[in-house]
Amino acid sequence: MSVLVVGSVAFDSIETPFGRAERVIGGSATYFSVAASFFTDVQLVGVIGDDFTEEHLDVFRGRPIDLAGLERVPGGKTFHWSGAYGFDLNVAETRATHLNVFADFEPRLPETFRQPDVLFLANIDPELQLGVLRQVRRPRLVALDTMNYWIASRKSDLERTIREVDLILINEAEVRQLTGDANLIRGARRIIALGPRTVVIKRGEYGVLMVTGELIFAVPAYPLEEVFDPTGAGDTFAGGFLGYLASVPDHGHPHMRRAIILGSVLASYDVEAFSLERLLQIDRSDIDRRYREFRELTEFGDLEPGAG
Amino acid sequence: MSVLVVGSVAFDSIETPFGRAERVIGGSATYFSVAASFFTDVQLVGVIGDDFTEEHLDVFRGRPIDLAGLERVPGGKTFHWSGAYGFDLNVAETRATHLNVFADFEPRLPETFRQPDVLFLANIDPELQLGVLRQVRRPRLVALDTMNYWIASRKSDLERTIREVDLILINEAEVRQLTGDANLIRGARRIIALGPRTVVIKRGEYGVLMVTGELIFAVPAYPLEEVFDPTGAGDTFAGGFLGYLASVPDHGHPHMRRAIILGSVLASYDVEAFSLERLLQIDRSDIDRRYREFRELTEFGDLEPGAG
Repeated sequence: MSVLVVGSVAFDSIETPFGRAERVIGGSATYFSVAASFFTDVQLVGVIGDDFTEEHLDVFRGRPIDLAGLERVPGGKTFHWSGAYGFDLNVAETRATHLNVFADFEPRLPETFRQPDVLFLANIDPELQLGVLRQVRRPRLVALDTMNYWIASRKSDLERTIREVDLILINEAEVRQLTGDANLIRGARRIIALGPRTVVIKRGEYGVLMVTGELIFAVPAYPLEEVFDPTGAGDTFAGGFLGYLASVPDHGHPHMRRAIILGSVLASYDVEAFSLERLLQIDRSDIDRRYREFRELTEFGDLEPGAG
Repeated sequence: MSVLVVGSVAFDSIETPFGRAERVIGGSATYFSVAASFFTDVQLVGVIGDDFTEEHLDVFRGRPIDLAGLERVPGGKTFHWSGAYGFDLNVAETRATHLNVFADFEPRLPETFRQPDVLFLANIDPELQLGVLRQVRRPRLVALDTMNYWIASRKSDLERTIREVDLILINEAEVRQLTGDANLIRGARRIIALGPRTVVIKRGEYGVLMVTGELIFAVPAYPLEEVFDPTGAGDTFAGGFLGYLASVPDHGHPHMRRAIILGSVLASYDVEAFSLERLLQIDRSDIDRRYREFRELTEFGDLEPGAG
């Protein structure tokens, strides 16, 4: 049981109403791997420069994360994103994107990485995503993330890649942008008509909506009195979600629902601090406790016969 | 078992991306009463003019809605609201508000209305809300709705009224405006510190969040492929929610949770058509069916020991 992720390993410089962090560790593959590693073996494919030191790599140590696919470019600099959030923590303002070594990233999978159970194509060029898919023996589940930039500039490439995946992770605005439909449910059905069986819509502080041909499942976000920094929440969600799915024998509705909750649990820890700070503190018992709190948050009984 | 509502009976002229309706029946007390009447006896206190004819009153007929408190002002005209929605159906743009007879509304309760089980003070001047509360023997539950206008212009009057109620229905932006706190959960706790035991936060298409001293309960909105007109959804929610609570012997957490779902069910029907069109078509079996669909939408199992 393993999950393979292809994405970014990066430095982030972040400003929120609650503080500021300079060049802390970030990147989609980083958040994803740490979150997924609570449930399964992880294989990471990404690229870094010389400035991402052995000390920075400590973030992965002591976890079942295989770094054989993490390429280091000698003399290169690591991807660096700078952004800021206002009080509406749902919206990030990008101040600078220095792709650096990520600009020429061409994922090449080590031989040992070519049979993952689950594959996560984090938000990169849709053509590169397709190239990765071509390098693996068909996994049990292939999931894809994307962003407004690719929808606007590379829609046909993106749609070609979407046709080949089982599941797409996407936020509300991106559903509308991709499908041209203001209604989320109809938009999700249009995506399903392209090929994926499952659409997982990320709604930030409003939680997650999962749409399949037979099922709609909705969960609110865990209510927090202190949301410190939302950076990485989407990839952390994906890590908990797909990490759990890699660890279970089938992907029927009961496990899909549990996976959505576990992704939400991991994301709720992520946003409590900058970078991976909080994720590196928690253990499996913290995850299980918050899972039970999600039950408390959402459950209600049947109507009693004749009541009302 | 009965619920008393004090609020508006009105005409609405509405434009949405899907159509237009001229001078259709609306008003907070109208939506509330029809929704609550599925569960309990309703006593309505409001005011209309001559232009609200016997035919318009048909909306209440055949339901356990007592109109003894619906005052008709001879020669007067009924409250008329005109508004429009864009594709973001969460935001109404008010085009005109003609208060007409509602401008001089001073609720006077008939003798038979002075012992309700549950009292709903719909969105009117907070001083009038307090005046109504003074006219009844203390009900089991007093709930209040309000709006940004009163928070901005009459905050201290509003806070005085809030101190005397058990429950407040309020939307997200209003929580932030009232409390000055960007975080909803902290904002809700500030409102609870004023007096109410329960804060019910309406989030439109994202559903409802209920916060008490001991409990947070969250439910997504019922996912609809066609949302036609959101007018009245908040008051319809309140009607289903409080109507059910008036019909049950206690207001412990299990019934509070069910009541939130029933309010959400009623609101989901309201938005499927203009005015009360859809609400007047459904019966109790439609409500029960959609309640069960809410279970399907939100439920998930325990984690299996050792899974993951």
